[in-house]
Amino acid sequence: MKMKELEEKIINEAEFIGDDIIKVDSFLNHQIDVGFIDRMGEEFARIFSGSGASKILTVESSGIAIGCAAARAMGGLPLLFAKKTRPATMGKGVYAADIRSFTKGTSTTIAVSSEYLDALDKVIVIDDFLATGEAALGLVDIIEQAGAVCLGVGAVIEKEYQGGSTRLRSLGYRVESLAVITSLEDGIIYFR
Amino acid sequence: MKMKELEEKIINEAEFIGDDIIKVDSFLNHQIDVGFIDRMGEEFARIFSGSGASKILTVESSGIAIGCAAARAMGGLPLLFAKKTRPATMGKGVYAADIRSFTKGTSTTIAVSSEYLDALDKVIVIDDFLATGEAALGLVDIIEQAGAVCLGVGAVIEKEYQGGSTRLRSLGYRVESLAVITSLEDGIIYFR
Repeated sequence: MKMKELEEKIINEAEFIGDDIIKVDSFLNHQIDVGFIDRMGEEFARIFSGSGASKILTVESSGIAIGCAAARAMGGLPLLFAKKTRPATMGKGVYAADIRSFTKGTSTTIAVSSEYLDALDKVIVIDDFLATGEAALGLVDIIEQAGAVCLGVGAVIEKEYQGGSTRLRSLGYRVESLAVITSLEDGIIYFR
Repeated sequence: MKMKELEEKIINEAEFIGDDIIKVDSFLNHQIDVGFIDRMGEEFARIFSGSGASKILTVESSGIAIGCAAARAMGGLPLLFAKKTRPATMGKGVYAADIRSFTKGTSTTIAVSSEYLDALDKVIVIDDFLATGEAALGLVDIIEQAGAVCLGVGAVIEKEYQGGSTRLRSLGYRVESLAVITSLEDGIIYFR
């Protein structure tokens, strides 16, 4: 699945940070173009239509805007966002997962209160980027700790060459990305 | 300005954390009720209609959802969210402010890239909570560093007894809150 408007925005507006990382601060990660975010939410709703989702799950903070847009377009589903926080501060019932950042060389715990996720939930994971898949796998792990079902993972921008979608699909999860970058070599953005 | 639906949701769903802090994780700070958030965004649009705003400014991560809803209801204004990050990681042109947390006894730097805020901007600050006013004052400071104008501060929930709205109004800023809590004494929520 591809969105031409998104690819054009990435080409025109993304900034390179070193060789391997692009920032899309003009419409997604710092300034948010709400009209555009809503069109992407509608695209996720079209892709996942009929899947019977009960809830959207994302992670703070860059997933919140696109998660809201997807939840709204899917008929006003609740959006739950995992917190990057020590689970201890969230009360007793918490599902948590550790996610590594290969770029930063650090590890972060993400957590969701068990009050808002249970075995009856059918959950779509929505996030801004899918790279190594660490964040998505952490969210999937949280869904399964709750005994709920993960219906799929939707990402705005997938960096395919970092292997996240391959990891997720090999585990049986559906992955849908609105733009799939196959290479950033020599400062040129290649889409699938 | 008051929203009866919001007061009812606070009474029914807020959880007390100690004596002085309430959490509204069921619809605003962990799970997001997007339909309800949109109605609050429309209320901010009504309150600030005709003010000529060019941009909404909030701070990650709990301000992003309500900021998006307000920006959408105001005709699709850009939403800019300040990052809680070391300005050094954001590139050269950065406006930054320190905000203290009285509950946690800590200080955080919030920062906005100068690429997305300039002297022509007329900005409405939108946030989830207004308590001591530290976050709002930091955002106002950032707006003024850019030479832009702050048209006002809109908060979903104001804890009036913590003095933030008084501080902001004494400095000449317009403050509009959708629910104003005057006291949380003895575990009872009193609204103005």
